[in-house]
Amino acid sequence: MMSKKRPLILAVNDDGITAPGIQAMVAAAQELAEVVVVAPDSPQSGMGHAITLNKPLRLDKVSYHGESIGYQCSGTPVDCVKIAIDKILDRKPDLVISGINHGANHSINVIYSGTMSAAMEGAIEGIPSVGFSLLNYALDADFTASKHFVKMIIKNMLHFGMPTGTLLNVNIPDLPLDQIKGVKICRQANAKWEEEFDERLDPHNRKYYWLTGAFANYDKGADTDVWALNNGYVSAVPVQFDLTAHHAMPRLNDWDLG
Amino acid sequence: MMSKKRPLILAVNDDGITAPGIQAMVAAAQELAEVVVVAPDSPQSGMGHAITLNKPLRLDKVSYHGESIGYQCSGTPVDCVKIAIDKILDRKPDLVISGINHGANHSINVIYSGTMSAAMEGAIEGIPSVGFSLLNYALDADFTASKHFVKMIIKNMLHFGMPTGTLLNVNIPDLPLDQIKGVKICRQANAKWEEEFDERLDPHNRKYYWLTGAFANYDKGADTDVWALNNGYVSAVPVQFDLTAHHAMPRLNDWDLG
Repeated sequence: MMSKKRPLILAVNDDGITAPGIQAMVAAAQELAEVVVVAPDSPQSGMGHAITLNKPLRLDKVSYHGESIGYQCSGTPVDCVKIAIDKILDRKPDLVISGINHGANHSINVIYSGTMSAAMEGAIEGIPSVGFSLLNYALDADFTASKHFVKMIIKNMLHFGMPTGTLLNVNIPDLPLDQIKGVKICRQANAKWEEEFDERLDPHNRKYYWLTGAFANYDKGADTDVWALNNGYVSAVPVQFDLTAHHAMPRLNDWDLG
Repeated sequence: MMSKKRPLILAVNDDGITAPGIQAMVAAAQELAEVVVVAPDSPQSGMGHAITLNKPLRLDKVSYHGESIGYQCSGTPVDCVKIAIDKILDRKPDLVISGINHGANHSINVIYSGTMSAAMEGAIEGIPSVGFSLLNYALDADFTASKHFVKMIIKNMLHFGMPTGTLLNVNIPDLPLDQIKGVKICRQANAKWEEEFDERLDPHNRKYYWLTGAFANYDKGADTDVWALNNGYVSAVPVQFDLTAHHAMPRLNDWDLG
């Protein structure tokens, strides 16, 4: 007797296997698929698309009261995706899901985010991939609404796939489910961090610096992820890893290049 | 008497301040501008767009035989750009130049590359920015031809600037100057790394894994950076940090999102 295989989903994040965000995401995904978790063994926020080249990686199974939870890897979120595909999974997963990040990854944050870079790595591997983030940094944030939208997006992604060369960046406002107006397909807002380094002196009188910054949105459009989130919507931005600025090529062909 | 100020260039890389690549790039840039070097104090290849959030940064002046060379920062290439702009430079630089990387950063490598991420950070700051890479990993590679093209590109960039929201990814073939056919404005080739982790046992019989991989180009186009480099040209790809896959938005609006 043949049975239709349940879909296989690889779940990753940048906050580690014990983060409430990934637990909520996995709980939602398990209603639809078999889920394998491979997460970093240390916090990897802001790691972007870093990979580990100068040292080897460790990979360990993790269980809780005898029940297998998944794997921990000593590398970056992107390393987790690579090693999961090469060494852990026995077939190509149907989806890669990353998150739920504790904190926003809208607008320019897609570039700095370990969560989104893990999803991007899944897309580079040709797997429909999505990163989820909740606009709440607290460890005890309420993921009830997030789980609802994680399940909705996964369902669609299993059914429709993703357009070639793209992944999805989903941000969820920090609101109860009945106050969220729906999901909006958006573009990345033109925004950035205005950095300021906080300069301090250590006990030996040597300077050190903490990166701090204020988020600045320069985009007045009502079709951006920042607008959607500010107006009570879940934002979903299709993201691509072909970074070519095709529109800029004609101007560069005017240059004096000998 | 007023004198026209010389342009100011911020030079960064991912290989550190002592790398021959950055020395060659700075020598070429100094013919056109005042150059300030801010480089990581440890190798940062493959760091992508990582930033340092969980620990503070150190910043030190470096000199050689009493002559100032620049600054070393304990962070990532992107951190170097951020701290240079906030704490070192007394005005916004006219350009950010990154490299010359020891090894290729064409095609998908733009996403993993610390060199290119530093240039992207410059562009996010609204500064015309470029990353240079030579297709030779050796520390004693010949940078003669590279210096020629670095100077040519910088000259154009100081004159024309860069289209808003873009930076430039320049790769230089490992050939003598008289065998390089010129500079081609290209798109990013559709290529990826086929990873394989090399599994080993440590002296305590625990497994560890080295990331290895083979580069695979799936793009038959003659307008890509990989094609240009294979055919004796310097490749120059305009890159953007708006990652929105605008073409994918209509298809996502077909999804069942409640």
